[in-house]
Amino acid sequence: MKLARYFRSSVFLCILVGFLVLSGCTTTGTTASATSSLQDSIKYVFYFIGDGMGSAQIHLTEAYLASVKEGYNDNKPESEKTEDLIFTQFPAMGMITTYCANRFITDSAAAGTALACGEKTMTEVVSLKQDKQTRLNTIAERAKAKGMKVGIVTSVGIDHATPAVFYAHEPDRDNYYNIGVQLANSDFDYFAGGSLHQPTPPRARMRRRGEISDANAVEPKSSYEVAADNGFKIVTSREELSTCKPGERVIAYNKSEEGMNQLTPEIDRPDNCMSLAEFTEKGINLLDNNQGFFMMVEGGQVDYACHDKDTVTAINEILAFDEAIDKAMDFYKEHPDETLIVVTADHETGGLTMGNGLSEYSTSFEILKNQNMSYAAFKDNVWSKYTSGQWGGVEDNIPDALKTDIENAFGLVYDKLNDYEKDLLEDAYDKGMSSAKRVRVNIHEYSQEDKLLYSDNDPLSITLVGILAEKAGIGWTTFAHTGIPVEVHAIGSGSEIFNGFYDNTDVPKKMAKLIGIELGN
Amino acid sequence: MKLARYFRSSVFLCILVGFLVLSGCTTTGTTASATSSLQDSIKYVFYFIGDGMGSAQIHLTEAYLASVKEGYNDNKPESEKTEDLIFTQFPAMGMITTYCANRFITDSAAAGTALACGEKTMTEVVSLKQDKQTRLNTIAERAKAKGMKVGIVTSVGIDHATPAVFYAHEPDRDNYYNIGVQLANSDFDYFAGGSLHQPTPPRARMRRRGEISDANAVEPKSSYEVAADNGFKIVTSREELSTCKPGERVIAYNKSEEGMNQLTPEIDRPDNCMSLAEFTEKGINLLDNNQGFFMMVEGGQVDYACHDKDTVTAINEILAFDEAIDKAMDFYKEHPDETLIVVTADHETGGLTMGNGLSEYSTSFEILKNQNMSYAAFKDNVWSKYTSGQWGGVEDNIPDALKTDIENAFGLVYDKLNDYEKDLLEDAYDKGMSSAKRVRVNIHEYSQEDKLLYSDNDPLSITLVGILAEKAGIGWTTFAHTGIPVEVHAIGSGSEIFNGFYDNTDVPKKMAKLIGIELGN
Repeated sequence: MKLARYFRSSVFLCILVGFLVLSGCTTTGTTASATSSLQDSIKYVFYFIGDGMGSAQIHLTEAYLASVKEGYNDNKPESEKTEDLIFTQFPAMGMITTYCANRFITDSAAAGTALACGEKTMTEVVSLKQDKQTRLNTIAERAKAKGMKVGIVTSVGIDHATPAVFYAHEPDRDNYYNIGVQLANSDFDYFAGGSLHQPTPPRARMRRRGEISDANAVEPKSSYEVAADNGFKIVTSREELSTCKPGERVIAYNKSEEGMNQLTPEIDRPDNCMSLAEFTEKGINLLDNNQGFFMMVEGGQVDYACHDKDTVTAINEILAFDEAIDKAMDFYKEHPDETLIVVTADHETGGLTMGNGLSEYSTSFEILKNQNMSYAAFKDNVWSKYTSGQWGGVEDNIPDALKTDIENAFGLVYDKLNDYEKDLLEDAYDKGMSSAKRVRVNIHEYSQEDKLLYSDNDPLSITLVGILAEKAGIGWTTFAHTGIPVEVHAIGSGSEIFNGFYDNTDVPKKMAKLIGIELGN
Repeated sequence: MKLARYFRSSVFLCILVGFLVLSGCTTTGTTASATSSLQDSIKYVFYFIGDGMGSAQIHLTEAYLASVKEGYNDNKPESEKTEDLIFTQFPAMGMITTYCANRFITDSAAAGTALACGEKTMTEVVSLKQDKQTRLNTIAERAKAKGMKVGIVTSVGIDHATPAVFYAHEPDRDNYYNIGVQLANSDFDYFAGGSLHQPTPPRARMRRRGEISDANAVEPKSSYEVAADNGFKIVTSREELSTCKPGERVIAYNKSEEGMNQLTPEIDRPDNCMSLAEFTEKGINLLDNNQGFFMMVEGGQVDYACHDKDTVTAINEILAFDEAIDKAMDFYKEHPDETLIVVTADHETGGLTMGNGLSEYSTSFEILKNQNMSYAAFKDNVWSKYTSGQWGGVEDNIPDALKTDIENAFGLVYDKLNDYEKDLLEDAYDKGMSSAKRVRVNIHEYSQEDKLLYSDNDPLSITLVGILAEKAGIGWTTFAHTGIPVEVHAIGSGSEIFNGFYDNTDVPKKMAKLIGIELGN
């Protein structure tokens, strides 16, 4: 939990609100013709994308922030029930449809392509037309062509679908090596976040592992080496990044996260790992120049957490995302007439809502603060002790040591659970123990009931985050994405064109109009 | 299904879109100071409230409209995946928080009070402060005091919480008799929708039924009689309503729905019953005058359908609501500079989303068109044959006759269901049969599993709408309300002030500003 900043920043928020009230009128009052004349004034563009961040994710985070505030639980009826995030205070907001060319429920590649290029494509496709061949111009490429510097920042791998759609063109998002090569050969200026999934070509990796041999073959360079040849400085620690200077082209990730292909989830992040906000802040420092810059920042792990129905980890990812936005706001305050900040999402994940069939009309968001590690960390670092034989015991029911571990991780006291919850947990324990020897639970062997309960997740860990959510008054409908529209929030000169209800393909078109470029797709 | 109008009106929609594109720029461009000077120009105000109508309800309806369009299912990738409702095309949109004073998840009384009076109150409370005593001015009362005529239209009882908050002041929404008396004594001009829940005082009804006797007591008048004494004309058929003339004060409901306290759900509505759109259209005719009017129109049964997780009935209620909005748009087109239309919701119901754990990334909204009666109609008119002994058979499993009835009502072919669905249905059949002798299933005897599956609904009927939803790719999390923000859409001079993210209490304040009145609470 890294909430302190929110309370410290309340004074700033008051100032911001006052500022928005005062300036919002003028901003809203800008006429369409005035907007056209403003085009040249937008030099600095921030494009924040919360992967999987639906309305419910945003506003649950706000309700959670209020619920952990001092004085909330005294049941005073005048208590405020929500505490605004920075970006929901922006003067402009809209909603966008997210469907893609071949499905109503999109994926991050097709949704990202819509947000980067302004065109619908097929799932899995990275910035190509529906024919999977014709290249689409991305707004980042067009901004670069105009002379702006470009940065791509994310909390997942920098070659993952959402960042990739801004610089790569591939028929399949899983072609990580090809995407990494395009990253290395791009003329962009800054990439920061999780490490590359496949820095070496598949055959090179197989050869290195001794799985194949080919004496005559020249070992191909890794994408990192290609990038270095192209002038990128590759830095892997806070100290190294701090030495980078404006004008240098930089690729940055945390050394200890190499091979993870994502940042450590915010709730689990050790102090020596750089955060999304730090990568964003340094990016601003490196990219700032008279020709302006375009920076995309993805809160990529909101989606990961929601695929696990891991409410608290999702909330922490949104708080980390909002901290990154705060860095952009610091820059905005220095250049209010020349800066545009747009915050949106590619789709919703999980079918999250505030209300479920057992808790009905009651909510207890404050109990969420008792969870202090992610679903993934519990599964990998705690539950694994029991399934690996490390613990040593063999019991038909959940052993006492595990009950203690559960209480420490989630604040759930086994003996205080009701019979229904205990049954859910004991079933999940049995299921998890019996499938523990497999690398991954085989969902195809699951009954429909088990599929609904666990999908391909660890049964016990997923049941624990589920029980905590239910007790807090939260509901989830799926481990996959959903098709509901998502929000857009914007601040800056001309940002009122982001008001209203429109399609995800309209977002980069509106943005291009304000920057004074054409996508030309 | 009453979709024909949507396809017939596509030409109008094209014109509307074109109009909005052209005029929207000007509207958006109105400055705050210009807004102030426009105050006196807003003479006609429409306030549409979709009870329980969250974002997912709105946009699922749009996805459904697209899915039943000719040519959609040929898998052409260029197919449009949504078909806009009239109100989502409005140039201004925002989102509002809905929490009330004592709960995060609100009810219709507290949410309605916020929307009518601009102040948070407790659940169950009708337009009184949190002390449950101090009267709050409603925007309808203030409009009336300014000299505007006022109409209240709803698809539920005209004394139900949402309509009541505009004219009544009661500590408990269930005080239907008191609310009806306040309706009868109000100076409003038009009430139309479902009949009163308690037109006579509880003791008078008991006396009439012979349950108590009091020879000396004078039989009190019913609210309808009081209303008639106050000059209201009470009409109960399309023919009678058609004879009403501008200037007459009118209370209108369908005779055949007397005692139902709601309109027949749109999906089941017989031709002789007036619809929400008809009540709205006639209201415009009756209220139109040089001093202007204020009309609240509630789509009240979106909420009822969502409490039943009855997806198709909810969609039909939203289509009926949109048809009523179409009537307001007809008026708007004649008086574009003097008319304001605001469409919003009091809260979401059901935790609806487009995506569930079994269908995952696939959706099949087109199968929803196979349902041709509401959950309630199936339960009352079809299932009741089996539980009342009317059918005559006694079987442990679902009998063939019922399988045929299920196919006719929902398009679900029993033999084509998978084992999981068959098990759900057989369990529900057993549960329903065994509890059929009770007036109402006693949820307190339910296990948590059963509570999640059925709540206090008929198990078989609720399972049928659930299976259809799951197959279509729809998820629900609760039979109750949820706490997520809801949408606001607006059109008319100055409507850009409804852009952004704010609180439900701000809606009547913004509206009052444009009308040029003060709520004064």
